[in-house]
Amino acid sequence: MPARGDHDARRRDVTEAVWRVLAGRGFGGLTLRAVAAEMDASTGLLTHYFPNKQALVAYALDLADERTASRALREAPPGLASLRAALLDVLPLTPAASAMNRIWVSSWDVALADPGLGERQRRRYENWRARLRPHVATAVERGELPAGPGTDDAVAAAAAFTHGLVVHALFDPDAYPAARQTAMLDAFLAALTTGHPMPTAPGADA
Amino acid sequence: MPARGDHDARRRDVTEAVWRVLAGRGFGGLTLRAVAAEMDASTGLLTHYFPNKQALVAYALDLADERTASRALREAPPGLASLRAALLDVLPLTPAASAMNRIWVSSWDVALADPGLGERQRRRYENWRARLRPHVATAVERGELPAGPGTDDAVAAAAAFTHGLVVHALFDPDAYPAARQTAMLDAFLAALTTGHPMPTAPGADA
Repeated sequence: MPARGDHDARRRDVTEAVWRVLAGRGFGGLTLRAVAAEMDASTGLLTHYFPNKQALVAYALDLADERTASRALREAPPGLASLRAALLDVLPLTPAASAMNRIWVSSWDVALADPGLGERQRRRYENWRARLRPHVATAVERGELPAGPGTDDAVAAAAAFTHGLVVHALFDPDAYPAARQTAMLDAFLAALTTGHPMPTAPGADA
Repeated sequence: MPARGDHDARRRDVTEAVWRVLAGRGFGGLTLRAVAAEMDASTGLLTHYFPNKQALVAYALDLADERTASRALREAPPGLASLRAALLDVLPLTPAASAMNRIWVSSWDVALADPGLGERQRRRYENWRARLRPHVATAVERGELPAGPGTDDAVAAAAAFTHGLVVHALFDPDAYPAARQTAMLDAFLAALTTGHPMPTAPGADA
């Protein structure tokens, strides 16, 4: 029977192999066989950790959540500067941030195909918007953003703009270097500050 | 040997089965076996059409391109109204548009994992931005949008905002009904019209 230390070391090997497969091939390439090959082990060994594909995907999503939560974040003064910092924390401005985003964008396929994972994804982005909201509220208090009924829409717009920019930058990194992504975000935030009313009235033509 | 009519009918059956698998399970669930089961045929029959998984994925992407290109588009006057119409054409405002977007978002996983498909995806969005650009240019000529050096960034921002809103609306349709998506797009376009400078100078802090 292996000693406890061996057991922990093997767990870490499995974790790193899962991460490398995700980073290289995304969720579409994440299989027990691929992880086993990545760590030069047998598929049989992997089934001790993951009885099936679903368990492997769930573990990979936990791992992505954990590594996303534990990454270094920018410090910024309260208000608009904190909103900007929180959005910059998401954009693929560095190789590490690009790798993380590549994994998340790839996860959307499995999340759309599975109601449980889809609900988890829905809550993940709802929680993200809830974390952005106080920055917008503080920016309004400080007079950096116009007051109005559209705070939730402003938060949702900032979140949508940022994720869309993530996707376009991942597919075309040459067209979206870090300086351009940052300039586009700053232009977006500048437009928010102009105080143009956010039309949220029901009955807007759809 | 089957008559020509039978052959064409069978091709149509294959096409519809591929589409139903994509709509229900995305690219992650697209396998020869799943398509065969969908049409109550043998996997062997499918190999006459698709020698391997790559051929099936390539066919599915062609099909998504074809159905995207042939969908009904909104008519609108030139300029800002045409930009708005082109972006509304993309948003998941109807069940059919949601199904189409669900397929495209799911395709990002396979596109990120394959350099050839990734390049095709890069060109797909570059072409989309090129189609949006004349609307922005006309809007500037008509005085609906401010003139300035930031036309390409305005086009890229509109494209990013729209795709990000697609993703958030797909995962949380209750929070993003059609009226809210439309109101958010209108607020975004209103912010573009305020003439706030688009900072595109190199050296912006990244």
